[in-house]
Amino acid sequence: MAKQQLGPTTQLFPMPALLVAVRTGDGTAGILTVAWAGIVGGQPPMMALEIGGSHYSTPYIEQEGSFTVNVPSTDMAVGVDYCGTVSGTRDPNKAETCGWTLTPATQIVSPLIAECPINFECRIERKIEAGRAAFYLVEILETHVDEEALGKDGSPSASAVDPLIYTPDKSYYGLGERIGEAWSIGKALSK
Amino acid sequence: MAKQQLGPTTQLFPMPALLVAVRTGDGTAGILTVAWAGIVGGQPPMMALEIGGSHYSTPYIEQEGSFTVNVPSTDMAVGVDYCGTVSGTRDPNKAETCGWTLTPATQIVSPLIAECPINFECRIERKIEAGRAAFYLVEILETHVDEEALGKDGSPSASAVDPLIYTPDKSYYGLGERIGEAWSIGKALSK
Repeated sequence: MAKQQLGPTTQLFPMPALLVAVRTGDGTAGILTVAWAGIVGGQPPMMALEIGGSHYSTPYIEQEGSFTVNVPSTDMAVGVDYCGTVSGTRDPNKAETCGWTLTPATQIVSPLIAECPINFECRIERKIEAGRAAFYLVEILETHVDEEALGKDGSPSASAVDPLIYTPDKSYYGLGERIGEAWSIGKALSK
Repeated sequence: MAKQQLGPTTQLFPMPALLVAVRTGDGTAGILTVAWAGIVGGQPPMMALEIGGSHYSTPYIEQEGSFTVNVPSTDMAVGVDYCGTVSGTRDPNKAETCGWTLTPATQIVSPLIAECPINFECRIERKIEAGRAAFYLVEILETHVDEEALGKDGSPSASAVDPLIYTPDKSYYGLGERIGEAWSIGKALSK
């Protein structure tokens, strides 16, 4: 198959479409959309997220040292895109604009976005220089999950979470067909 | 909506299902599946990946200081699961077992998996301690894309890449419905 070389790029498929929320005042939060993120550790659970220094919310994030990461479902796509497009300088109350509810976290001051089926409370462990940019390494202190999104085993079910997916061709997608079970379908190749 | 608290977890939706390949000998590669990964910087493009120290491939990764990250499409799901399930100690030639072709990279010694529509050549920039575990921060040196996966703008198209998605309920998914255009659909909420 013929390949083209594009040079160094960030063309990773898929990416999550996450909502980072940080307290900015009494009952208000700065909310921004982050796709450059992933789990990077399990003991304790840790996530890495790139959040540019020029955002309205960044000084609040730096001051608090914590924020929430909220996993939106596909029906929140318009609001997610709005939070990734419009600056908090122009709209300091995006939750209201999007029709979302802010509810208290348990271990940090920043609120959860109630409409998101999964919410993580995160504490910044370190800010890490990465070339001419930087990202946050955060520890996940708590996970909140909608009861309706929990499967029989007590963990979130992908089909019930219905997560929003971002792809670098500037698109949002939902999950499609379930292809198979992990740690299982590969057995077909075992000798 | 009633929420349940699960404590600290790694329940992020979605995750990528990536194939890390490292040269282990003349024409052979260790291949392992990684879902704990994400882009964390753009200047230059950088990725963070958690690769446990106990894997067969890890000493080769540490020795070379580089590896490839390959984005599989949904039709490779069985092989991807195999590479995440079976150790290289048991099968040091997983590419052959999976029916995949190893082709040379341009800037590092580790090979690309030709069947993957996107391949990244990555050089380890740093190994970063994260709690009781560690992850690699890598610089993306080159991106190879199947010509058939490129859209009109010369960048990969999600529908043509058809990326495999991992979700923490031990499932593989493909992309579903395209929900909308990023930096666009949110304008509906602009005042």
